[in-house]
Parts: sequence; structure tokens; C-alpha cells
Amino acid sequence: MTVKLTEQEVSDALTALKGWELRDGKLCTDLEFDNFISAFAFMTRVAMRAEKIDHHPEWSNVYKKVSIALTTHDAGGLSAKDLALAEAIKQELSR
Amino acid sequence: MTVKLTEQEVSDALTALKGWELRDGKLCTDLEFDNFISAFAFMTRVAMRAEKIDHHPEWSNVYKKVSIALTTHDAGGLSAKDLALAEAIKQELSR
Repeated sequence: MTVKLTEQEVSDALTALKGWELRDGKLCTDLEFDNFISAFAFMTRVAMRAEKIDHHPEWSNVYKKVSIALTTHDAGGLSAKDLALAEAIKQELSR
Repeated sequence: MTVKLTEQEVSDALTALKGWELRDGKLCTDLEFDNFISAFAFMTRVAMRAEKIDHHPEWSNVYKKVSIALTTHDAGGLSAKDLALAEAIKQELSR
């Protein structure tokens, strides 16, 4: 069982993260790239990072747009794993 | 402007395709793989095929599940492009 973040921890995380918001208790962001190749290349980098930390996003892609929702099912909400994945995503976005 | 398929053509295509259905006028399927690696590897193969034929899916992934919706915006519905992409997806599924 993964420990669920407190409301204060979630609030602090949202302040630290730019461009993310809570939707239905999930940590969400919507991204737009130059084209499909760039969008899917980003997804591929994130896929590697997600598999490495064994925590995976719920995400969708429509051409150059990618929407991501993070949650930790066995925590019943957000956990440190979601923040770690959000940080990895931020790093891959800045490459 | 891409030519929209007739209702008969869509009906015939649905008969030929296994595991696809119409939802909100889009050609949809839900797939499940053994794990995330398999799911994303499949998506990567489809991404290459989609880019090659310049027609891209609307799709989402949650761990080992992939949901796909095909439509042709400039046809205002389904076109031959969707059937071509569905065929490519079928081929990549059987690899």
C-alpha cells in the first residue's frame, strides 16, 4: 500500500509544478507539440521513465496533443510516485 | 477534402474488421496487452505506420490497455484513411 499524500502536500506540489492541475483527484496536464513526431517522441521518452520507476501515466494523444493524468490506484489518490513521474515528465519536456 | 464513406461502406468495413465498433461515428477498439512494455511497443509500431500514411489515431493508454478511435476530420466522418489505418493496426497486432 502506497501512502496517499495529504491535502497540504498536494497543494504544495501544485504550487511547485507549473501547468498541472487537479481533475477528479488526478494530477493532470495538457501538452501541445509541433507535430505528431514530436508528441510521440516525448511519449516514448516518458514511457521509458515510467517503466523504469514502475509507475505509469494515464494518457491520451490526438495528433500533436498529449493529455496526462497521474494517480496511484493502490494509494486511493496521489502519492509520491505521481510527483516523481511528474518530475520525470518535466525533465523530458525540457529536452 | 477527403471523401466520407457511405453508411454501406462503413457497415461492410465493420463486418470485415473484428473487434471494432462505431462510437460517436468513430471507428473504435479497445485492446489489452500483457504489460506496459507490450502496450507501448505496439503503440510505437502503430505510430510509425500512422506517420507514414499521414493519418493518426486518437488513442489513450492506461498501463496495459490501449483504446483507439479513428476518424477523418476533413471528411466529417470515416474515410478510406481510417480503414487503411485500421488495417495497419490489425497487422501490427498480429506481429
